[in-house]
Amino acid sequence: MLFRSAHGEFPADAIPAPEISLSVLSDLRPLGQIHESFIIAAGRDGLWIIDQHVAHERILFEQVMKQRAAGRVEMQRLLMPLILQLTPEQQIDYARIADELNVSGFETEPFGNRTIAVKAAPANVGAADLEKILYEILEIAESELRGASLDDLRRGICASIACRAAIKINMRLDTAKMEWLLRALAATDCPMSCPHGRPIAMHYSTREILKAFHRI
Amino acid sequence: MLFRSAHGEFPADAIPAPEISLSVLSDLRPLGQIHESFIIAAGRDGLWIIDQHVAHERILFEQVMKQRAAGRVEMQRLLMPLILQLTPEQQIDYARIADELNVSGFETEPFGNRTIAVKAAPANVGAADLEKILYEILEIAESELRGASLDDLRRGICASIACRAAIKINMRLDTAKMEWLLRALAATDCPMSCPHGRPIAMHYSTREILKAFHRI
Repeated sequence: MLFRSAHGEFPADAIPAPEISLSVLSDLRPLGQIHESFIIAAGRDGLWIIDQHVAHERILFEQVMKQRAAGRVEMQRLLMPLILQLTPEQQIDYARIADELNVSGFETEPFGNRTIAVKAAPANVGAADLEKILYEILEIAESELRGASLDDLRRGICASIACRAAIKINMRLDTAKMEWLLRALAATDCPMSCPHGRPIAMHYSTREILKAFHRI
Repeated sequence: MLFRSAHGEFPADAIPAPEISLSVLSDLRPLGQIHESFIIAAGRDGLWIIDQHVAHERILFEQVMKQRAAGRVEMQRLLMPLILQLTPEQQIDYARIADELNVSGFETEPFGNRTIAVKAAPANVGAADLEKILYEILEIAESELRGASLDDLRRGICASIACRAAIKINMRLDTAKMEWLLRALAATDCPMSCPHGRPIAMHYSTREILKAFHRI
């Protein structure tokens, strides 16, 4: 990552990065978007760049995890059940995780041979994504056999729901939407990385900016 | 210069910095200010940070240099002449550069022993800065004896005028002012560094941002 100037490239220098105090996120002021994907925000100390998709993913992930832990996941009933064909392996995985799916907001039931009917889904998940997300969860369930824990499965299900439901990149956001997103992100327990471990926010402190411009 | 994320610090990586095409500056859209000193702008490729003082300094420097070359520096007559006391060394320097001062918009004349009267000054220079700027120029003239050329002296005079007249840091700018500044900067011959060699603009390309967020 390089900033360029007439003087060539600015290499990473030796400023020790101070501890990230998460409270600094609480007063971010959105300035605008770059590439209709990244929110540029001013904080009380410098500049922030926020990946809008993974930020929203983190917000939804924590929301779904909390709803799940409290046993009250918001669900929506489908107008028509979704019928899914399963492979023999998927059917075995399904039988094992059916209860877990149910607690996570997917109301499903066997529907003949190697077929299931999905009658309700978590409120955030659009009908178009439902099929993809269920196959994705069955894949996670399969990997569970290879060593992942039940807790990993639960987190994986919530992460899949959050990822599919989150706003995408290449989407224009108005200021009100950006403000909401930054406030909701600041209120999460872990606002700096998404459930899959990708970074959500980059910070460029005032001190670093002053130094880059030879002002200190 | 480091961007921080939950994953620690992002070191400078090995992306070869593409040639800076100055035309990319021509469509910068100001998003806001950081620290009331740096303009954050979106370009057709990524994010820019502009030091408002040195940007304005570059604009004024080229303007004064052009006026000087054309022999028509904009001047303002002082309501009262400014009387300056000189040291013996400064008097020698003054005698040598008096013509140059005149061409640069400072109308001065000897006023008794080791004293000069300043009757007019370049239009951009405020009365409060006039004394400082003239002593600064005499210092440049002194360094000329130590090897700087007449051309260096001329550039030094224009740089001093530009530096004193330019907007400062820690000054709030409205959007119209920022737009004007970015347009005027894009129209300069050398928009990337100030007359004293300091960087004016930092660029963070879309590719670099995408890479930092693990999107490519």
